[in-house]
Amino acid sequence: MFLAAPASSTLFRPTVLKTAAARASQTRTRAFRCCAAAMSDKLKPAARVSGQRKDVWSFINEAAETSPNQPIVNMGQGFFGYNPPPFILDAAKKALDRVECNQYSPTKGRPSLRKAIANAYSPFWGRKLDPETEVTITTGANEGMLSAFMAFIEPGDEVIVFEPFFDQYISNIEMPGGKIVYVPMHPPKTGATKTSSAADWTIDFDELERAITPRTKMIVLNTPHNPVGKVYSKEELQKIGDLCVKNQIIILSDEVYDRLYYVPFTRMATLSPEVERLTLTVGSAGKNFYATGWRVGWLIGQPHLLQHVSAAHTRICFSSVSPLQEACAVGFEQADSQGFWAETIRDMKAKMDRFNEVWHELGMPYSEPEGGYFVLVNMSKVRLPEDYPFPPHVASRPRDFKLAWFLIQEVGVAAIPPTEFYTDANAHMAEDYIRFAVCKNDDVLEEAKERLRGLKKYMG
Amino acid sequence: MFLAAPASSTLFRPTVLKTAAARASQTRTRAFRCCAAAMSDKLKPAARVSGQRKDVWSFINEAAETSPNQPIVNMGQGFFGYNPPPFILDAAKKALDRVECNQYSPTKGRPSLRKAIANAYSPFWGRKLDPETEVTITTGANEGMLSAFMAFIEPGDEVIVFEPFFDQYISNIEMPGGKIVYVPMHPPKTGATKTSSAADWTIDFDELERAITPRTKMIVLNTPHNPVGKVYSKEELQKIGDLCVKNQIIILSDEVYDRLYYVPFTRMATLSPEVERLTLTVGSAGKNFYATGWRVGWLIGQPHLLQHVSAAHTRICFSSVSPLQEACAVGFEQADSQGFWAETIRDMKAKMDRFNEVWHELGMPYSEPEGGYFVLVNMSKVRLPEDYPFPPHVASRPRDFKLAWFLIQEVGVAAIPPTEFYTDANAHMAEDYIRFAVCKNDDVLEEAKERLRGLKKYMG
Ligand SMILES: Cc1ncc(COP(=O)(O)O)c(C=O)c1O
Ligand SMILES: Cc1ncc(COP(=O)(O)O)c(C=O)c1O
Repeated sequence: MFLAAPASSTLFRPTVLKTAAARASQTRTRAFRCCAAAMSDKLKPAARVSGQRKDVWSFINEAAETSPNQPIVNMGQGFFGYNPPPFILDAAKKALDRVECNQYSPTKGRPSLRKAIANAYSPFWGRKLDPETEVTITTGANEGMLSAFMAFIEPGDEVIVFEPFFDQYISNIEMPGGKIVYVPMHPPKTGATKTSSAADWTIDFDELERAITPRTKMIVLNTPHNPVGKVYSKEELQKIGDLCVKNQIIILSDEVYDRLYYVPFTRMATLSPEVERLTLTVGSAGKNFYATGWRVGWLIGQPHLLQHVSAAHTRICFSSVSPLQEACAVGFEQADSQGFWAETIRDMKAKMDRFNEVWHELGMPYSEPEGGYFVLVNMSKVRLPEDYPFPPHVASRPRDFKLAWFLIQEVGVAAIPPTEFYTDANAHMAEDYIRFAVCKNDDVLEEAKERLRGLKKYMG
Repeated sequence: MFLAAPASSTLFRPTVLKTAAARASQTRTRAFRCCAAAMSDKLKPAARVSGQRKDVWSFINEAAETSPNQPIVNMGQGFFGYNPPPFILDAAKKALDRVECNQYSPTKGRPSLRKAIANAYSPFWGRKLDPETEVTITTGANEGMLSAFMAFIEPGDEVIVFEPFFDQYISNIEMPGGKIVYVPMHPPKTGATKTSSAADWTIDFDELERAITPRTKMIVLNTPHNPVGKVYSKEELQKIGDLCVKNQIIILSDEVYDRLYYVPFTRMATLSPEVERLTLTVGSAGKNFYATGWRVGWLIGQPHLLQHVSAAHTRICFSSVSPLQEACAVGFEQADSQGFWAETIRDMKAKMDRFNEVWHELGMPYSEPEGGYFVLVNMSKVRLPEDYPFPPHVASRPRDFKLAWFLIQEVGVAAIPPTEFYTDANAHMAEDYIRFAVCKNDDVLEEAKERLRGLKKYMG
């Protein structure tokens, strides 16, 4: 009886399009077509939502359902296994008693939250951020990023994305008709044999420069990085920034894990005024306050860029959730005095270290995270039995999918195969890795470790 | 000292694009262009967020700021002046204590809420709705409708929209490249002289049929209607449904005011199996539970349509706010036993009647609402002084904008000019009308009435 897993129906990110039910209904639609002929084509979906192979979340879900090791310990998706701190929960409850906190907020976000964010980030920026024009609230970081792409991308514009990428970038860039140009982060050469810092995942800057064309409109950066755990060094950021200034490329800097760093952390926008002018910084209250289900995010940027993001957000969601914006305002106002930011680093680093002990025990190399709550473990030492009965949809995917399937079936731990976050061309770079999320209670981490020790017998 | 107005910064829907700050910054951008030449064009926004004239919300905002009658009584935007009922607020507070209610929900929505909605609507549909495949939760009705357009509209596809329309339809249809084909609702011929039912706003079905082309992919319907207050009769819906079945047009039925009807109300999807097959029904917890700031909405529809809406929603917001979804589930589970649906009709109808007394006193005709919380008042009897100093941006708009400006300046009541919800070609139909939202506390309604009595001296 394991404590780890919530009810299986909410365990994993279901993506509707590719569930069994959806497939069945596609068949039904197809059957209907035979009868009603051309007419029913009129009901067909737009290209932007159709097609695509089974996504990783339903893959994992399905694996979890068929595993003999029930319930599965879920180290897959990056949601927290514990609650936001009491001072923020209390603020949310108080907001629910206030009439204006239950009604529409201004489309740019509640003044209290914009002000609290401006105050919290002004010290990093080294100047006073204007809450009226330099902060805009969105429905999670996710809808914030979509708003940024919708604000700037015309069909055919190019956006540079590093691999591995956060999966939602792709559909969000494609929605306004953007073309994605991929540049891989290169894993450490010795990744299969020894543990080294996530810093050793590197960008080839010549490769990056070659990816830039006159149509390059934006670049997406993520630091601290999901899933690699890398915190880009100031020097790396400067090289990227120089290229962007030279070519006037808008930088979408996804810094949702900005309060979880274990080495010095530089925020892209703070490099120089020239870089700041091009940079939209993305934040997430879900990640900052252990509340991924609250859907409060924001963008910080100069008005000449940010006004268009706000305009896009208004057209997408109109406004974002009011009482939880109010609670997040209190979160930012009180986090320092509550010692919350220091605590969040201390606690997550302790979880990271606690969990990673098992890899030392097993002699399994991993990338030591510099930030965030994910760890990439290199499982090239795991020998998958030659005759293992992988179902066809698993057998046809890169080795990390087989590893993930095997882990769920044989030891009952769910984790994510990172080639999902690569193009086919570059998937080979990460096919020995598996991603674990450590933002879980310590007893869950211990249970996962206990199970993972069972891998010993498959190691050569 | 009026009780009516919350802090002015949150009083009205600010739309970022057209605020003074935004205009100033556009000027700044333009100035920059001169210096940095072609290069800076690389930062220009996409067409979908640029341009457009000053929207009605900033128009009203500005009028309110310059009025001598401070604070203004705000009867403009449709947010509630009071809280959701205690049983729903309590449910929200309880949800905040549950770890899984603060984390990501499944992209389709929390199972509890999908089940509660399926149960609540199955009796109307006359069959059991499947919560797994026939209900999907969205970030307000607004993002739900955008998801529907994103799911089905390819560039050049046509969508029929009735005038007056809910303003967000337009940008939401244009975002995926849809072309809007407008069909006006015709106001009652005697609207200027006598009060009659909102039912007298009618559709010319020949006109509607002529608007249909082979590219017509969707039609948007709104009942109960904002701002007209009309509840479409079964016969009217049947005629629209027949045309849609004949031409296989997807029907987006915006029924966000579905719990506020004062005459018999028919839901589009319940007309016939043929119509149901084409219909996506949109709902809003914000409207149902007096919580417009919660951003919980949903779509009900058959899987062959709904799966694509869910897929689009996943790409737009990923998932919606978890603890408030949970509270809305309790809302639906308990509404009947709490007598809430009956109360909501009784209370709003009482507000409507209370407020409209003033028009009888004044002898000012209005459209007697059959549903919703808006009333359209015909102010052709108000004589605007010939030499009234309207600012140029008001003077250049239709008469209802002048009326709205005048009301704010002279009596201190904010209301909405409905030609904002028309194309220029048809704006003349509504230029004598003004929209008031009555979802306010009774003391606010009384204060508004007291002020509106001041119109007497301008009536001829
Ligand atoms: C890199 C990255 N960006 C953005 C997000 C989305 O954040 P939010 O939940 O605020 O939408 C995530 C969530 O996993 C993430 O990992
Ligand atoms: C007709 C109509 N549809 C949809 C909406 C949006 O509803 P929600 O607040 O749930 O996004 C409104 C809000 O005013 C409306 O009047």
